Amino acid sequence: MLDKSDIRKLVEDVTARSGFTRSIGARVVAVESGHVAIALDRRPDLLQFNDYFHGGVIAALADHAAGAAVTTALPASKIGVTIGLHLNYLAPARGEALIAKARAIQVGSTIGVAQVDIMTVIDGIEHPCAVALVTLRAVDMSGGSRTSRP
Amino acid sequence: MLDKSDIRKLVEDVTARSGFTRSIGARVVAVESGHVAIALDRRPDLLQFNDYFHGGVIAALADHAAGAAVTTALPASKIGVTIGLHLNYLAPARGEALIAKARAIQVGSTIGVAQVDIMTVIDGIEHPCAVALVTLRAVDMSGGSRTSRP
Amino acid sequence: MLDKSDIRKLVEDVTARSGFTRSIGARVVAVESGHVAIALDRRPDLLQFNDYFHGGVIAALADHAAGAAVTTALPASKIGVTIGLHLNYLAPARGEALIAKARAIQVGSTIGVAQVDIMTVIDGIEHPCAVALVTLRAVDMSGGSRTSRP
Amino acid sequence: MLDKSDIRKLVEDVTARSGFTRSIGARVVAVESGHVAIALDRRPDLLQFNDYFHGGVIAALADHAAGAAVTTALPASKIGVTIGLHLNYLAPARGEALIAKARAIQVGSTIGVAQVDIMTVIDGIEHPCAVALVTLRAVDMSGGSRTSRP
Repeated sequence: MLDKSDIRKLVEDVTARSGFTRSIGARVVAVESGHVAIALDRRPDLLQFNDYFHGGVIAALADHAAGAAVTTALPASKIGVTIGLHLNYLAPARGEALIAKARAIQVGSTIGVAQVDIMTVIDGIEHPCAVALVTLRAVDMSGGSRTSRP
Repeated sequence: MLDKSDIRKLVEDVTARSGFTRSIGARVVAVESGHVAIALDRRPDLLQFNDYFHGGVIAALADHAAGAAVTTALPASKIGVTIGLHLNYLAPARGEALIAKARAIQVGSTIGVAQVDIMTVIDGIEHPCAVALVTLRAVDMSGGSRTSRP
Repeated sequence: MLDKSDIRKLVEDVTARSGFTRSIGARVVAVESGHVAIALDRRPDLLQFNDYFHGGVIAALADHAAGAAVTTALPASKIGVTIGLHLNYLAPARGEALIAKARAIQVGSTIGVAQVDIMTVIDGIEHPCAVALVTLRAVDMSGGSRTSRP
Repeated sequence: MLDKSDIRKLVEDVTARSGFTRSIGARVVAVESGHVAIALDRRPDLLQFNDYFHGGVIAALADHAAGAAVTTALPASKIGVTIGLHLNYLAPARGEALIAKARAIQVGSTIGVAQVDIMTVIDGIEHPCAVALVTLRAVDMSGGSRTSRP
């Protein structure tokens, strides 16, 4: 069971307790209700053969930030589970870090939508490398997400 | 420089030489012109907090299989680079493995599109867990993918 | 209130009673549980400036067929309302007609997903011109779709 | 052949000369390089059975505005042709008009991407009803768009 009384702690807990987000080094940069930024640093095991961040890493970071942004805006008993993920890649992610900045643009009783700007940090300057629209379903936390069919 | 004279070897090379696909344990299951299947096995570092495969891992595998499927169908000097990635998640990916089966449904001089069925393997039986449409741009191999702006 | 006791009649009713689908000449070609095909014929007011079917007409037909396919697979009291629409355009829609063939690939208690193949008919032969993935929310018919926030 | 020396005239010409955009009453609201707003007014033949604007009309307007926004940012000899269209519907489009506000977020030599906010106007106030990401291919104007395979 997750505790949503402190939304920053919630996002940090989910990020640290999920094997995949922990393994790619995702770290929470900023959390407000409906807005979450998550970053990770360049490592050889996150790149594709041309030494840019792999598109799958970008997709994963966008997905995670979107889920966190929508969850912070849902009632305390609900968590957002991704049902649709759409990304456009805009430029090579060649920097030393990635930051995904998600904001919830629609939060209803069953569906939430987040828009995510993904930036690559080159010499300390953020450059857009992808943009995403993520669709989530609100599920009861106690039941566990994705346990039942959507 | 990649060698496309043997398309299976090409796909295995790209999968093995890319830090991220190697680190998540992606392995080539099948390669034909325009059709590629890539799998990976369950590991704690690929899961989300509810112990299903993370959506980002599913997205990464779909992206990689799509790129391979389109690249095998392009002329020898060209490689497909993802510019758009869309997934619908259909069911929890709770199995012991994932398989992404991609087929090129459109291959032109500048754009390719692949459709991907992502299955989770539960007790040896494949169950659909996601479906994807991936849009790629054909770029010259020598120039390196994503080097120049799309 | 719509009657779902006869699913073909339901799809024909919704197609005929919706101002837009009627105005573009959409006609029901085939209906089975989870599968619906909807067609329309070429007319000058459905084209873009290069005399192919406009992408918006293709999107509308795909959306309508997807909604019908998912609705036929939902319980009698529920109807599918589109929350996400994704299309890839594969080839110019230059034929004398369009056919959208939708099948429900996931139907749950709150979410449905349909995959749609859109064909253009050239001299009587169907050629793929687009493919779509459509995400729908199941809403109670009596309440009216899209009345409340999703 | 289209004349791009005056980008507002270009957008108005394409909007007026395309059978479909003319038939749905699309009108140009604003044009700057990389930014285009297109609107249309409520009419019975643009609605679905619940009397909201049909999702296909929203998709068409988004597609058209995106194409115009990217085309205004391309070199004079090029026009943007949609290859991918993604929309999330956020709220019922119940107003007296629709406005699609598109901006080019990436423009390269072969690919352009536009982000579109679609608003419904209720008693003169704009409310978001959908958001879109549209992927376009840059093609030579003289060759006609979508003539050759992408």
